[in-house]
Amino acid sequence: MPKHEGVSLSVIKRLPRYYRFLGDLLEKGVTRISSRELAQLMRLTASQIRQDLNCFGGFGQQGYGYNVAALHKEIGNILGLNNNYTIILLGAGNLGRAIAKHMDFEARGLHLIGIFDNNPTVVGQQIKGLTVANSTYLEDFCRERKPKAAILCIPKEAAHETVERLMSAGVKCFWNFSHYDLSLAFEDAVVENVHLGDSLMTLCYQINEYYSDGEEK
Amino acid sequence: MPKHEGVSLSVIKRLPRYYRFLGDLLEKGVTRISSRELAQLMRLTASQIRQDLNCFGGFGQQGYGYNVAALHKEIGNILGLNNNYTIILLGAGNLGRAIAKHMDFEARGLHLIGIFDNNPTVVGQQIKGLTVANSTYLEDFCRERKPKAAILCIPKEAAHETVERLMSAGVKCFWNFSHYDLSLAFEDAVVENVHLGDSLMTLCYQINEYYSDGEEK
Repeated sequence: MPKHEGVSLSVIKRLPRYYRFLGDLLEKGVTRISSRELAQLMRLTASQIRQDLNCFGGFGQQGYGYNVAALHKEIGNILGLNNNYTIILLGAGNLGRAIAKHMDFEARGLHLIGIFDNNPTVVGQQIKGLTVANSTYLEDFCRERKPKAAILCIPKEAAHETVERLMSAGVKCFWNFSHYDLSLAFEDAVVENVHLGDSLMTLCYQINEYYSDGEEK
Repeated sequence: MPKHEGVSLSVIKRLPRYYRFLGDLLEKGVTRISSRELAQLMRLTASQIRQDLNCFGGFGQQGYGYNVAALHKEIGNILGLNNNYTIILLGAGNLGRAIAKHMDFEARGLHLIGIFDNNPTVVGQQIKGLTVANSTYLEDFCRERKPKAAILCIPKEAAHETVERLMSAGVKCFWNFSHYDLSLAFEDAVVENVHLGDSLMTLCYQINEYYSDGEEK
């Protein structure tokens, strides 16, 4: 049984932000903080913070507040950031390449061990110390190295077939940048989506609302 | 007054997904669809679809369903995708460069008109037909071209000062990739966040839950 069954995904999705703020506090040398102060900093209510953290047992002490280092470490544990889960990248185009270079995987509990592409001009290139392999070797690689997750930076058209191959090869968890709703076709896949196109349209909506209130800005 | 005041952001955030699915249907030559069929396709309930679309006046006809082309166009209008809002990019590192090259801004109602960086080895380079300018020219550029929004692909440490400069220069809308919660310091900024680090930690949590149910996988 998963360890935190019953905790809603909306609570989970707030944990990385707590982790980030607590990390900043640690860097500034802050050792303890009350839920009221933390709430002010993060623009939440103290009761929401207490509620969120109570889902995992609660870490505060009445009259003392939270020990910043302990809470930071504990949230890191809940998020599983110490497990060094292996992950591979599918698609070494502009976006995939940037994700590989830009992200600090190790700081987020992951370890990038392979990069695949089917474009012959890209295969063989070095990215972050890894040689881009031809996608035809995907199954062999998965059999040997058993990666736990895959990053999908591939076109929508290629996504279904690629996910099918990955699932058959034992990879069930996906960081999905392709504009393909893979959880519709693969019900038992574990998916975290980053739909940049959707996000950009949401931005466009907000710009449009901002500039359509009649005022010259 | 904004046109859709009172419509919750969670409804807004679902619109791009409707737009995407309707676009796919259009490409496949589907001309009409019932809310039940659309619900099945998108794994929503028919009543949620009707509720969402009713926020904007509703587009279905009893016994006919939705006209796919009309609904697609109407959602595009609501999202403001026909306005060609001008946007600039701050930070032409790995991620900024990939965003500039990878995203189809025009299809999402935006027009990329400038790229800025303060790294002298990057300034002067060509990205998607634009010459990367030195950030010192930011104010001049904003005065002349009045961009409506900015993409922040800059380090967290540089974010506060950059946003301050942009806000003073009249840019109030942000697509924020920096791990900096800018809406805390700039209450009247319009912000769409893409916190890739938070997303990666959420993925890590889900991998951890998946693999910690005791079963060998």
